[in-house]
Amino acid sequence: MPGNSFGELFRITTFGESHGPMVGVVIDGVPAGLPIKKEDIEFELSFRRPGRQFVTGRREKDEPEIVSGVYNGRTTGAPITILVKNTDVISSLYEEIHYKPRPGHADLPYIMKYGFENWDYRGGGRASARETVGRVAASAIAKKLLMLTDTWIAGHLKSLGYVELNEPVTFEEVLCSKYSPVRASKKWLEKKYEELVKQATVEGDSWGGIAEIIVRNPPIGLGEPVFDKLKADLAKALLSIPAVMGFEYGLGFNAAKMKGSEANDEIVKKGDKYRWKFNNSGGILGGLSTGEDILVRCAFKPTSSIRKPQKTIDLRTGEETTISVIGRHDPAVAIRGVSVAEAMVSLVIVDHAMRAGYIPTVRISDDQIKIIEERWNKYISLCKPTQVSQ
Amino acid sequence: MPGNSFGELFRITTFGESHGPMVGVVIDGVPAGLPIKKEDIEFELSFRRPGRQFVTGRREKDEPEIVSGVYNGRTTGAPITILVKNTDVISSLYEEIHYKPRPGHADLPYIMKYGFENWDYRGGGRASARETVGRVAASAIAKKLLMLTDTWIAGHLKSLGYVELNEPVTFEEVLCSKYSPVRASKKWLEKKYEELVKQATVEGDSWGGIAEIIVRNPPIGLGEPVFDKLKADLAKALLSIPAVMGFEYGLGFNAAKMKGSEANDEIVKKGDKYRWKFNNSGGILGGLSTGEDILVRCAFKPTSSIRKPQKTIDLRTGEETTISVIGRHDPAVAIRGVSVAEAMVSLVIVDHAMRAGYIPTVRISDDQIKIIEERWNKYISLCKPTQVSQ
Amino acid sequence: MPGNSFGELFRITTFGESHGPMVGVVIDGVPAGLPIKKEDIEFELSFRRPGRQFVTGRREKDEPEIVSGVYNGRTTGAPITILVKNTDVISSLYEEIHYKPRPGHADLPYIMKYGFENWDYRGGGRASARETVGRVAASAIAKKLLMLTDTWIAGHLKSLGYVELNEPVTFEEVLCSKYSPVRASKKWLEKKYEELVKQATVEGDSWGGIAEIIVRNPPIGLGEPVFDKLKADLAKALLSIPAVMGFEYGLGFNAAKMKGSEANDEIVKKGDKYRWKFNNSGGILGGLSTGEDILVRCAFKPTSSIRKPQKTIDLRTGEETTISVIGRHDPAVAIRGVSVAEAMVSLVIVDHAMRAGYIPTVRISDDQIKIIEERWNKYISLCKPTQVSQ
Amino acid sequence: MPGNSFGELFRITTFGESHGPMVGVVIDGVPAGLPIKKEDIEFELSFRRPGRQFVTGRREKDEPEIVSGVYNGRTTGAPITILVKNTDVISSLYEEIHYKPRPGHADLPYIMKYGFENWDYRGGGRASARETVGRVAASAIAKKLLMLTDTWIAGHLKSLGYVELNEPVTFEEVLCSKYSPVRASKKWLEKKYEELVKQATVEGDSWGGIAEIIVRNPPIGLGEPVFDKLKADLAKALLSIPAVMGFEYGLGFNAAKMKGSEANDEIVKKGDKYRWKFNNSGGILGGLSTGEDILVRCAFKPTSSIRKPQKTIDLRTGEETTISVIGRHDPAVAIRGVSVAEAMVSLVIVDHAMRAGYIPTVRISDDQIKIIEERWNKYISLCKPTQVSQ
Repeated sequence: MPGNSFGELFRITTFGESHGPMVGVVIDGVPAGLPIKKEDIEFELSFRRPGRQFVTGRREKDEPEIVSGVYNGRTTGAPITILVKNTDVISSLYEEIHYKPRPGHADLPYIMKYGFENWDYRGGGRASARETVGRVAASAIAKKLLMLTDTWIAGHLKSLGYVELNEPVTFEEVLCSKYSPVRASKKWLEKKYEELVKQATVEGDSWGGIAEIIVRNPPIGLGEPVFDKLKADLAKALLSIPAVMGFEYGLGFNAAKMKGSEANDEIVKKGDKYRWKFNNSGGILGGLSTGEDILVRCAFKPTSSIRKPQKTIDLRTGEETTISVIGRHDPAVAIRGVSVAEAMVSLVIVDHAMRAGYIPTVRISDDQIKIIEERWNKYISLCKPTQVSQ
Repeated sequence: MPGNSFGELFRITTFGESHGPMVGVVIDGVPAGLPIKKEDIEFELSFRRPGRQFVTGRREKDEPEIVSGVYNGRTTGAPITILVKNTDVISSLYEEIHYKPRPGHADLPYIMKYGFENWDYRGGGRASARETVGRVAASAIAKKLLMLTDTWIAGHLKSLGYVELNEPVTFEEVLCSKYSPVRASKKWLEKKYEELVKQATVEGDSWGGIAEIIVRNPPIGLGEPVFDKLKADLAKALLSIPAVMGFEYGLGFNAAKMKGSEANDEIVKKGDKYRWKFNNSGGILGGLSTGEDILVRCAFKPTSSIRKPQKTIDLRTGEETTISVIGRHDPAVAIRGVSVAEAMVSLVIVDHAMRAGYIPTVRISDDQIKIIEERWNKYISLCKPTQVSQ
Repeated sequence: MPGNSFGELFRITTFGESHGPMVGVVIDGVPAGLPIKKEDIEFELSFRRPGRQFVTGRREKDEPEIVSGVYNGRTTGAPITILVKNTDVISSLYEEIHYKPRPGHADLPYIMKYGFENWDYRGGGRASARETVGRVAASAIAKKLLMLTDTWIAGHLKSLGYVELNEPVTFEEVLCSKYSPVRASKKWLEKKYEELVKQATVEGDSWGGIAEIIVRNPPIGLGEPVFDKLKADLAKALLSIPAVMGFEYGLGFNAAKMKGSEANDEIVKKGDKYRWKFNNSGGILGGLSTGEDILVRCAFKPTSSIRKPQKTIDLRTGEETTISVIGRHDPAVAIRGVSVAEAMVSLVIVDHAMRAGYIPTVRISDDQIKIIEERWNKYISLCKPTQVSQ
Repeated sequence: MPGNSFGELFRITTFGESHGPMVGVVIDGVPAGLPIKKEDIEFELSFRRPGRQFVTGRREKDEPEIVSGVYNGRTTGAPITILVKNTDVISSLYEEIHYKPRPGHADLPYIMKYGFENWDYRGGGRASARETVGRVAASAIAKKLLMLTDTWIAGHLKSLGYVELNEPVTFEEVLCSKYSPVRASKKWLEKKYEELVKQATVEGDSWGGIAEIIVRNPPIGLGEPVFDKLKADLAKALLSIPAVMGFEYGLGFNAAKMKGSEANDEIVKKGDKYRWKFNNSGGILGGLSTGEDILVRCAFKPTSSIRKPQKTIDLRTGEETTISVIGRHDPAVAIRGVSVAEAMVSLVIVDHAMRAGYIPTVRISDDQIKIIEERWNKYISLCKPTQVSQ
């Protein structure tokens, strides 16, 4: 099967290139009756939008058009298509990379696979991070559906370069980090991240970082043994994001250095429920969600497009040359990457919640609509921007 | 779709429980004409077999029966089914865990999802690592098919607990590690690993570890943008293995701490080919294989079954209690996990090689058969056991 | 994706060849808690079994072994594997066809596709009707699950050769036809069919026939627009059966000769429900089930294996020759084909009932188990054999 | 999985409602390098276009926009999205059906499934035949790819109401029928069909009909046993079309009345090739293409929208009432249905040609492009319109 679709019951197909007329997404499998407004989509898109401070200078309003599947403000059960026009496109900046594949980029592999003649190099074409607009747009619908089980998903930037958050963080702090220009969950951290970003911008360089996503109050038992374990589908989801080079959940790679008596997590009673003492396993055991918070992290490499000259090949001559990538690029893709990671996690969770029967596949009832709307209104009103960002 | 199948064009479905009559696998999508003998399957199974020194005491011959899809020693294009009987089963050891879910195990999540009454607790049931027999059996066919493109896959234990290999390793050393009882690629490392394992056995404890898998000479351009990127499918494959808590490729999590000018990899000419200088991206860029060695790592947590007493709940009374997991368990699942990780990587690579047209989906020609047989014979004869293990 | 799996949420994979050691099926997606006994499978298998009067002389007990997914008599949520050994195999009868592809058979196309060397010609190999054992075995579980919505599925032989049933038939008559040796729903029809079959046997010839399958009390709204319409999935299901050459539902091909004012079906009230007056559309409108009985028919060609000499090619010489197919063959595959058609319809209905949320994907509750068991016991006790067949 | 996608390796997803802003299709899996112009799409769309004589009065130019996946006139390997705006929409004509579900239509089943409140009734919403625009648009690309194997696909109206073509027809006549306003392959037949259509228009009634599709020179061995047989996938494809009630190939339903000695088809030598004497099996045996012409037929019911008053229910009052469906409707959906059936067949053939390795999945070479272009130019220039239609 070709690779531009994701999900089993809640299934998205993204399309469009960075400098083509538009990018978009078809979302198939959304039950009928869900209230969806253009503003819901815009809300989620606003946090991955370029043009904010500390990210790429590309300034697009990213205005979504819902062109199918919604009638009178409610989903009909038909596939939902969302289009976002590409408006601020300067392809001329990319003429050089037509012949000089950028180190760290998809350029050369795409040429090797699809042929030099067939390569839409403008802005990175299909390999551009702009493709992720469709994912984030779809995640608005996923997150809204998940209000039915009162499941909330939020992410923050756990580390940037060598600066790492090593103190406890509340779910609210994580949720409100979306208003931070560098996606920091603490004010002091925001300062440090901003310094790093400024430094990189001055140097014509970039930084890597780690995004952490938290799923609060997930339904229990999500994940389908033995291959569609929840951890497996989350790993695929996050590794499908450009620039992501690693995934872990719970103790993650640290577990590899531990003894069983350290890593195991005792089962205890919390009220009348059986729970886990430390949630070392990040909410997933045996590949199934346990009901504890799901905690996943993914590693973003530093932005590959840097102003510093790097060696490459001139494909016209076959000779080695150098390239200094100009154009408007994030000094750290991880910052906006948090939104995309959050989106991918929400797509996996809603899909598995449907597979396990927590969310109806056909139709949302009026009572359910009411619950969803109440929680959604709370969700979008939380964290008044003035508090976190200046 | 239910979760017990993996792969698109080369597709496996595993079945069977730890203490049921057998475990097995159906492999659909194997082209006709491939010579397959029972011995090919046994060869791969021998490296994950329990009963070797330093791993679980369960002693099973793991004798595979090929019951469909092969006629006169060659595949017919029909689905291939391989059965492996469960012979050395002592379910009585598991009576206690029927009521006392083991910390770090799938027990409680399975009960929560499927119901206490429906849970086949004997030996961990479907959640047992024994399920992976089918994966490894299938990988023999995958690896043999990959001989067509001269692509070789091998793995070793990169770290065990706090002991880590930090010096260069050759592909041969990695390949030959399969004859090491602790899956070490160096003699001195083997010693250290063995000490750790012995210590854990004495203490009734266990260790985590990191498996590294190398794909030598992969076809170029494997991976289907934007969701079935090669890195995404590899991540899913490895996270679908029990006890795996993290995945990375190339620089992996280290990239998150780097600057772009460090992490980017320059494009250079090697002979008449365009290649990457340091292979920082582990053979995958833009989600596509570049032709460089593919390097992936996955983190295994320590074996959850330990003799040391741990807190849990007695489900009959709902009260807290302790459990000391007896039975025959690996002191470090990562050791045998290397075989399983290797198997999963080979399943992903062969699937993508078929998707990209490198391996025929319908039928292997006589010329191709000859090439495959020659390389396969070399593959199984390499690394005489006397050299690496004692 | 390879072709040996069927279904989305209730998914079967069949394997095995006619003269290999066994045939079998893996059923993935069955919720936990369903009581399943070997006898349930045997019950359904008994109606497609060869060795009954008027069908092929092959005498196999078709004894199913459930080797995974069931523990203590209940499903666990894990994939269920059923094996049926091939016991009455006389491959020597097939030596001739190794070189002389039989007209009307898959022999030559299989050779063309997979290669002469790779063809398991014994008994037709994978193309044998024996492959359908796995489908019928799986249908026992499908039918039992459908007891939850009180949905019953039954089929009969609507025509054989030039003899056709043109009078009304009750659901009970259809259900009880399974005990008729020629699958007739009326006693007088049984006589006529038997005469036809005897005549064909004497002449060394065979007859075609039409199977009709009825779904009583289907859930409303099954089918997923626009490609997975219920009618589309039923058509695929029935055309996947060997020897089936046509499919229709409701008015079927007759509708093509009608005017809209004839073919349209008025919407009326029956009690407090909206229903259709004549059910011209066979229970499916807009690709969705309407709640009326679903009525589908499929056309079986006459058995291709006939004693009468037919022209073919001797592949050793490339010259034309004749073949007279000996061996044990049904004089009309349509007779046993009814069971297979019924099985395929039940697989489609249960799959769509799960997709639409009528049947849980994870777990059956104790109350549901009770309902299922009661209805199932009624189902298997209906139509005492003495009444219909002699 | 939701139902709006079709195909495995060549995969389309359609979206859009009859009276929404647009309908469209995403085509994933098209190899890079294929030359595609807007005119190619328009060419195929022109034959299903409403507004031609004898079909619905809706006059839309159906102008396709290719908004992704094509760069510099060639495919890039990325998903291709084609949008077609809905321009001639008069929703007011549909106010009445909001409350009065039309007999023979999807109205009431959609309401039952998705809820009255969530139903986009305007123009039939998603259940409208307008949805098939995307399928036909995609078929232009499928047909063009199939030029690589010199495989041509064409259809004609084999019967309309009680008028049926019972004499031999050449492939050219079938191909050229697309220029006939009633899709007739013979001039005398065209006359008869036109009379029938006029009569129905006068009476406010409609007619059913049978479309026949021919695949000339198909690759050998298409179809994947045992469920994805070519006949099975063709049946699904055709039954997924609105108003289709039956499918058959080769002898079809007639085979059910025959003896084996009549229906079987002898294997003979034609030149140095093994072929079948009468092609009774319509080019498909054992579920695989044999190399003979593939012949399939599907039955369209008469247009459900007729002016003649029919009984239905007023959903506001729950009382019986009548409806006379005004608006612009085809007097026989089968006429335009031929184009859609042809499109669906081409989607199945190209998908299976890719699955069997006849068409590359990644990239078309320059030599292949040349062959494709030559044949395509021939294809679009055949049958000068002046010859067949007046």
